Amino acid sequence: MHKLYATYGSGNCYKVQLLMHQIGIPFTVKNIDVLKGETKSEAYLAINPNGKVPFLSLENGETIGESNAMLQHLAHGTHLTPESHFDRIKMFEWMLWEQSSHEPNISPARFMIAILPELREANKDRIAEWQQKGNKALGIMNNYLAKHDWLAGEKYSIADISLYGYTHVAHEGEFDMDQYPHIQAWMARVAETPNYISMPEIMQDLLKAA
Amino acid sequence: MHKLYATYGSGNCYKVQLLMHQIGIPFTVKNIDVLKGETKSEAYLAINPNGKVPFLSLENGETIGESNAMLQHLAHGTHLTPESHFDRIKMFEWMLWEQSSHEPNISPARFMIAILPELREANKDRIAEWQQKGNKALGIMNNYLAKHDWLAGEKYSIADISLYGYTHVAHEGEFDMDQYPHIQAWMARVAETPNYISMPEIMQDLLKAA
Repeated sequence: MHKLYATYGSGNCYKVQLLMHQIGIPFTVKNIDVLKGETKSEAYLAINPNGKVPFLSLENGETIGESNAMLQHLAHGTHLTPESHFDRIKMFEWMLWEQSSHEPNISPARFMIAILPELREANKDRIAEWQQKGNKALGIMNNYLAKHDWLAGEKYSIADISLYGYTHVAHEGEFDMDQYPHIQAWMARVAETPNYISMPEIMQDLLKAA
Repeated sequence: MHKLYATYGSGNCYKVQLLMHQIGIPFTVKNIDVLKGETKSEAYLAINPNGKVPFLSLENGETIGESNAMLQHLAHGTHLTPESHFDRIKMFEWMLWEQSSHEPNISPARFMIAILPELREANKDRIAEWQQKGNKALGIMNNYLAKHDWLAGEKYSIADISLYGYTHVAHEGEFDMDQYPHIQAWMARVAETPNYISMPEIMQDLLKAA
């Protein structure tokens, strides 16, 4: 069975859990507590020298880092990978954009506001910069979703799962989602897809595994 | 003919130019001067609302943002895309890692040291953080390349082109490349691939186009 190393509350970990739940891939989870420094432990670095979560150990012994590479492997050949070549290129584009322009701003702002608020005051200038850049990213998504139901082609795909991970918790980083009605409508569509499971629901597995 | 919007000295732009040169895809370039604020001009934002370079306008009228998505489209079906599914997953993993852990540290350090040194003093703490994280990334690459000739599978591919873009100019950000002999050997292998062209050579096209 595949084994996912993950930490509670991480949007990058949730993406992978959501996909496996939606397409019915059984997996176990191992809780790695980032706040306790467990990603930097000797034991974990022996598993993943990059020292990050999520990290996926496949049942054939291979491993994959990078949440969006996991999505591409696990969804390969399923209805959640776009069929046409160019829709897959748009999927890659959104996933690369997520890692370069979206997650690096929304995730740390949320982390220092909602997860470790004791860091907030000392980092207020950086948080302001992340919020400014994160709002730019959300504006781009909102404009795109004004004209399209889904991000890559005409159907729900792993491009949507990738962007949903941190977008649906952006309000925890004090991003005003009322500014983005088309994102809100898209998030409601995602939550209605078959076998959808929320972050708190599936993260319960991690607490049980801890 | 494809049209690439690019800026002089950008590793992300060079990747795409290098690939097109190596596989013989004709293209024109349009110089967008980031330092003069041209990526934020109304005219450019009408072309690319994300306000970044590179940006690729295909001859069929479609467009692609994100340098690594351009590489995947342009190399599709060529010898520079790995043949096996899992080698392609490793290629995605390296490209996503490049955008999340490598380029965001090496590129801004290089920018404020070599391209706009007047920013250096005011940003010395950020530069130190980028150098620390960039060295961590280079260490991971170096360890991998101690055991592998190429990044994704047994052959040179767009995963190598993607990482080569900023790695080969990292010394301009005062990264001490003598620490990374396996990266140096790999860079020498890249420079010996058929139809290789250096950044200064191909960037001449941009100056002519300006």
